This record gives sequence, structure tokens and C-alpha cells, in this order.
Amino acid sequence: MAHTIREKNKLLARVKRIKGQLDAVERALEAEAECEKVMHLLVSARAAMTGLTAEVVEDHVRTHLVDTELFPDALREDGVEELLAVIRTYMK
Amino acid sequence: MAHTIREKNKLLARVKRIKGQLDAVERALEAEAECEKVMHLLVSARAAMTGLTAEVVEDHVRTHLVDTELFPDALREDGVEELLAVIRTYMK
Amino acid sequence: MAHTIREKNKLLARVKRIKGQLDAVERALEAEAECEKVMHLLVSARAAMTGLTAEVVEDHVRTHLVDTELFPDALREDGVEELLAVIRTYMK
Amino acid sequence: MAHTIREKNKLLARVKRIKGQLDAVERALEAEAECEKVMHLLVSARAAMTGLTAEVVEDHVRTHLVDTELFPDALREDGVEELLAVIRTYMK
Repeated sequence: MAHTIREKNKLLARVKRIKGQLDAVERALEAEAECEKVMHLLVSARAAMTGLTAEVVEDHVRTHLVDTELFPDALREDGVEELLAVIRTYMK
Repeated sequence: MAHTIREKNKLLARVKRIKGQLDAVERALEAEAECEKVMHLLVSARAAMTGLTAEVVEDHVRTHLVDTELFPDALREDGVEELLAVIRTYMK
Repeated sequence: MAHTIREKNKLLARVKRIKGQLDAVERALEAEAECEKVMHLLVSARAAMTGLTAEVVEDHVRTHLVDTELFPDALREDGVEELLAVIRTYMK
Repeated sequence: MAHTIREKNKLLARVKRIKGQLDAVERALEAEAECEKVMHLLVSARAAMTGLTAEVVEDHVRTHLVDTELFPDALREDGVEELLAVIRTYMK
């Protein structure tokens, strides 16, 4: 079962939190706050989005590159770890 | 006047669009869609967020590094353009 | 055979080109050029490095996540394409 | 005086180190090492390049956006810090 289904509620909670961060951006724009504040709120919302995306990409690598029911032993764990280490350096 | 105030409605509309993209992520998670779909939706929402952030950062460079009323001629346009060219290569 | 071996000469030529770009950074620093020039040279060397890294990561995904001799049909092409599409958005 | 001139020797040493890292990539390709090793070497060379670029960009912000001799007090330190905080989140 894909991680996005197994961890559905946890992931939904994270999406809700990011939407809450975007609500804060909206309020700052409405209140004509300094662009520094808007910038700060956007950067942290984007960081949260990047973290969530990295988690879903990791799940994709583990569950969707190989049909693990047809080929249970095909995916090489060391190859997966090396790839995820590189992806994490880019998805910060 | 800061760009975030001058272009307030345009920026608010962009934030609303990104929230709409996150609604689509929520629906995909609720419907237990393939993680490929969730991944795809997240990557495009993040790209929209990156674009919006880059615009606010550009505004910050032009309006908040120097008090343009006290020092109307202080900001060097070529220096600003070089900086923004680099920032854009990172904020894609 | 891994792409890094099959395309060895092409990849070596690209590494040499990036080293040439770093030589140009060295010359600019030695000549005490404006930091704008140094910045510009560094950004393009980094972009070349990113492109080369993305190519090697793609090769890793295609040849090292599954032992393609033991499991010739295990790797799902659509899953691979989806993953590489996301990786490319980050490795620009 | 620009940072790239003031810190010339330190920056030259860093460029030399990155070229050394690229020499290691060349040796790994010549020796037909596993693409995981090539990937690993490239990712760390790119990280070193990103760090060096971030330092030069910071210098550019502090010394080239305003003619600090003509306008010694024009650059707003808090605006600069906010900008550099955002740039650092992208240039990791």
C-alpha cells in the first residue's frame, strides 16, 4: 500500500498546515504589512511544501518504481539510499 | 510604496490560486490517488510558490535595501540587475 | 553497463569544461575583477555542474535501483519517468 | 574594497579545492567506478560551489548595490539581513 494512502491523515494534516501558512500570507498582504514579513511567511510556507514533496517523492521511489508484489526482491536498498541522499540535498 | 501594497490584489489572487492547488492535493489524498498524482500536484504548487516568492524578493531588493526617499539615487541599477539575475537562477 | 562507463569520454569532456570555467573564476579573482564578474562565472559553472549531476542521477535511477540482469522487467518505465520529471524540476 | 579582492587568497584556495573535487570525479570516471561514487563526488563538489557562490552573492549585496563612498548610510542593514536570510534558504 502506498505511503500516501497508509499515512493519509498525517499528510492531510501537513497540507492543512501549509494552507494555514498561506492564510497568514493573505492576512499580511491584506494588512499591507512590510514586504519583509510577506517574504518571510512565503519562504517558510515554501520550505514546508518542499519537505512534504520530498516525503512523497521518497514514497514514490520505494513503492512505484518496481511492482513490489511481482518482484519483491528487485529493488536494491543501497541504490535507493544513495538516490534519496542526493534528492534530499536538492529538496531542502 | 512597496510592490506588495501596490500590487496587493494581484498577489492575493496568486496566493488564492496556490491554495486552490493545495485543495487539489487534499482531494487527491482523500481519494487515495496514486502517489504519482499527489507528487505532480505538489511539485506544481511548489513551483507557483517559488515564482511568487521570487517576485516578492525582487520587490524587497528594489524597495527595502535603501530608503529611496532619503537616498533617491543611491541604488545602483546594474548591481540590482546582476543580483536579480543570480537570484532567478536559484529561484526557479 | 552503466551510463558513466558507456558515456565515459563525453562525461570526462564535460568535467574538463567545468574545470575550465573554474579556471576562469581563478583568473577573475587573480585580476581583482568586479565581484559581479566572479559571481557570474560561478553561477554558470554551478549550472553546468547541476546539469552533469542530473544526468548521472538519471543514469543511477535507470541502472542501479534494480539489477536489470536478474530482473529485466521489474523497473516500471512510467514510475521512472514521473520521478525524473520531479528531479529535473529541482535540478535546474 | 570588494570582498573578492580583500579575501582574494581565501577565495582562490576554495576554488582550488573545488577543482580538486572535480579531479576526483575525473579519476572516478577514468577508473569506471560505480555511478553512485561519481554521483556522490559531484553532489559534494556542487555543494562546495553553492557555498562559494552564496559568499560572493552576499559580498555583492553589501558592496555593489550602493556606492558606499557616495552614500555611506544608504544601505539598510535590516533589509540586507532579511534578503540574505532568504538567499541562504535557496543557496544551500
